[in-house]
This record gives sequence, structure tokens and C-alpha cells, in this order.
Amino acid sequence: MNRQELVGLIKERQSYLCVGLDTDIHKIPKHLLSHADPVFAFNKAIIDATKDLCVAYKINTAFYECMGIRGWETLQRTVEYIPSGIFTIADAKRGDIGNTATQYAKTFFDTYNFDSVTVAPYMGKDSVTPFLAFHEKWAIMLGLTSNEGSQDFQLQRVGDEYLYEKVIRAGMEWGTPDNLMFVVGATQTAQLAAIRRLAPDHFFLVPGVGAQGGSLQEISSLAMNKDCGLLVNASRAIIYAGNGEDFAVDARNAAMQYQQEMSEYLSQITVNS
Amino acid sequence: MNRQELVGLIKERQSYLCVGLDTDIHKIPKHLLSHADPVFAFNKAIIDATKDLCVAYKINTAFYECMGIRGWETLQRTVEYIPSGIFTIADAKRGDIGNTATQYAKTFFDTYNFDSVTVAPYMGKDSVTPFLAFHEKWAIMLGLTSNEGSQDFQLQRVGDEYLYEKVIRAGMEWGTPDNLMFVVGATQTAQLAAIRRLAPDHFFLVPGVGAQGGSLQEISSLAMNKDCGLLVNASRAIIYAGNGEDFAVDARNAAMQYQQEMSEYLSQITVNS
Repeated sequence: MNRQELVGLIKERQSYLCVGLDTDIHKIPKHLLSHADPVFAFNKAIIDATKDLCVAYKINTAFYECMGIRGWETLQRTVEYIPSGIFTIADAKRGDIGNTATQYAKTFFDTYNFDSVTVAPYMGKDSVTPFLAFHEKWAIMLGLTSNEGSQDFQLQRVGDEYLYEKVIRAGMEWGTPDNLMFVVGATQTAQLAAIRRLAPDHFFLVPGVGAQGGSLQEISSLAMNKDCGLLVNASRAIIYAGNGEDFAVDARNAAMQYQQEMSEYLSQITVNS
Repeated sequence: MNRQELVGLIKERQSYLCVGLDTDIHKIPKHLLSHADPVFAFNKAIIDATKDLCVAYKINTAFYECMGIRGWETLQRTVEYIPSGIFTIADAKRGDIGNTATQYAKTFFDTYNFDSVTVAPYMGKDSVTPFLAFHEKWAIMLGLTSNEGSQDFQLQRVGDEYLYEKVIRAGMEWGTPDNLMFVVGATQTAQLAAIRRLAPDHFFLVPGVGAQGGSLQEISSLAMNKDCGLLVNASRAIIYAGNGEDFAVDARNAAMQYQQEMSEYLSQITVNS
């Protein structure tokens, strides 16, 4: 999916919601466990219940990898079930030297046909650029993450800036707003406005809303740009909103709350521009 | 495998060679392509030909992931075929927030039963410590890598030290020489002695010998400690040493050259200690 299509989708749906399918078999409603593939049965119901309210699905690969080969089958079934026209993110945080990075890019873009994959920056340019060479595919590079460990290195000073700022500036030299996004954690509100000034045109994938405590209002007012420029991810707050027979209805209601709030913030861009 | 067993294996075999199974189906001898699982057929022959000369096998997961679900089957077959008593490394470079990192640790330590997994440090403490909580399992954290991109961030100054030094010092607070190793690229000879002074007791996994140009002699003289403290990885230089019917013989000869050279360097520790 290209940038124009993504921006069009956001306007049409009045939403910049990404639903995170971090599905843990130990947390899904018990009545699904009799299915041949309980995690897929859960994901299918969540997708059916939210597909008109969100613009993206993010699949956290760790939750599938830990189930071994069957987990990858579930992942493939899930990504194939997502309606075309919705942006797909493999949240895999890959990063390795050039020839290996190319294998990872092929994995997620060709083998599984994701629109995008999250990448880790520690190994530098040749670990990221192979992901930028695919037509209408995206790398989403870690910038400043939502977890406590972001203080250990990302928020250390390198010369006159933070390491994460150096990372984002480097990324902006390697890629463009058409093939590169940045991960910016929802809990990092103290830095959000500065990050938007640093990268005015790039999309940010913002995880950490809901269970991790980030505020949608704050994120939106600090970091939205004229094209919206945000994909805000909620995982646990949506997919585990309920735990009974009606879990998909509960998930839809949770997603709809986000979408309605987003619709308000989006209307403010239109007024201002 | 615990540290004592690993050190014992190195002494017994007179080797600190790790054979990297970065197997690319496009690079293996053509006569193997008629096998049901050509990559496994290749790996099996390489393992049979080298298992008495090395102390570890490193499986670069990217080369398997890119083949989709069949690739994970090949990976699992390969790790199960490696004789017990040889150290196994999942070169997966995973890193994510705490609850996700735990899923990755389960994946490689429980689901696939690897002894160790490589981890990326950018997300900080809570992305690494879940890998340190497993009995007789190891995290191998990226320190200073062998690729050109290591200059982009790892070799930037943070206060009065390089970022990679800060990463290694942080790792030494989180883990111990019994559950944590560091990746130090073979091409980084200018830094190797300083890294050994910084972390005198930890094992280093050293990739980049052979195809990437690192010198075994230099690495060994700069970074060996009294327990050896090194696992030196060669991938392409061994597994693609030949490309005909006799490829496994060529791989054995290449591995034997490394082992014989290593045996010399190991004898110098004994003399000195």
C-alpha cells in the first residue's frame, strides 16, 4: 500500500486506529479452545468485528513464533484473512547485516505479503536499507519506544541530541515519508512534539495506548500532521475488552470508542488546514 | 548447556569454532535439489562432516524464515539433528518490550530447545532480562557488530565512551558470565582488546571471520581469556567451501583448518596460565 492510499483510507474511515493482534492462547475465551486453530478463530472474530473501524492490523510475531510451526500457520492464515485495502504490519523488530536483512525483507514482504515490518536500528544503515527497496512496502524503524528500557540507550545523549533523535535523523536520510515510518511510544509525551518537529512528514506508529497507559488525546494533539501522520495501536485494550461469548462485540465497542475519538481529532486537522 | 560444560568442550575438542548454518537454497549444490528438504539435506551433510571439529552451530533464522512455514520445519529438523553436547545458537537478534521478549525467549529456549539466542539491545533492560531467566540458557547481546553500519550508532560517543561500551557495561549489570555473551565482530580488531578489558570473563561470539574478512589470529591474540572466552563463527567460508558432490568434504577441510589453527592458540593459554 502506498502513502496516498493510506492517507485516503484514514480520511474515509475517520480513523487512524491500528488493532494489535498480540493474541495469546492463554488469554482468549475458553469456548474457542475447541476450534482446530483457536488463535485464528479468535483473530477472525476480532477482524470481522473491527475491520470497518481501523485502518491497520499489527501482528506481533513473537506471539505466533512461540507456538512453533503451528504458530506460523496461524500467522499466515490471519494475514491472509485481513481484507485487502487494510494496512498490515509485521511487528517483528528485525535487524541484521545486509544479506541477512534482505532475507528478512523477503520473508515479510514476499512470503507473507505484509505491507510493512518493524525494524531495529542498532546495526545501522545496511541493516535497514534492504527493507526500503521493495515497491509500496514500508520499514517502520524503532525510534523512541514506550517501555521503561527506552531510558537505557534511546534517551542517552549523543553529542547535542538523544540517541533516538540521531536514529530518526539517520532514518530520514536512508528512507522517505513514502517508505519509512518510525515507532514512537504513546507514553513518551514529553518528547512527542519535538519528534514531530524533527520528522514533520513521516508517519509514526504509536503503540502503548490503553494497557500501557498512553493518552490518545495527548498523542494526537502533539504529533498529528496535515495528513494525520499517525497510526495509533491498541492491542490488549481492544482484543481482550471482553472475555465471554460476546468478546467480539466488546472488542468492537472498544474499537469504536477509539474511532469516534479519532474522528473528532481528525476533524480538527480539516478545520486548521 | 552451562559455562563449565562449554569450557570443557572447548578444551576437549581443542576448538572454539562455531559453524554458521546460514543456508541459502540458491547456493547449495544442485544435486541436493531433488531431496524433499534440500536445505536440511545440506545441513545434515555439513553437520556430519564438522561435528567433531566445532563446539557450536549457529542457525541464522532469517534464511529459514524466508522460506515460510517449510523453512521453520527445516530449522526444527536441523536443530534436532545437531548432536546433544554441542552448543546451539539461534541467531535471531530479537528484542521487544518485556512481555513480548518473554514470548521470544520461550520460542527459542522451550519450543526449539536452543542453548542460546542473539538479542538486540536498543530497547534496553526489559527487552533483554527475560532471556536471562532460563536455567542453563544464554542471551548473546549485540555489542559491536562486524558490518559497516556499526559506525552509525554503535561507534558514536555517549558521554566519555562509545555506545557499544555502554551497552556492554549495561549487559554486565543485567547478566553474568554464566548466562550472557556479547557479539563482537571479527572485523573490529581496533576495539577488541579494549572490549576484553571491559568484559574480562564473558564469552564473545565473534562473527565475520572468512567471507567478511576478519583474521582468526588477530581475534584470538586480542580477545582470548583464560577460559578461551571465544566462539568464533564462520559461515560461508565453511559451508560453501565447495559446491560439487564433495561439498561436505570441502566443508570438513575448511573447518579442520580453523580447528587446527585454534588448537595452536589454545595451547598458548595453557602455557601462559
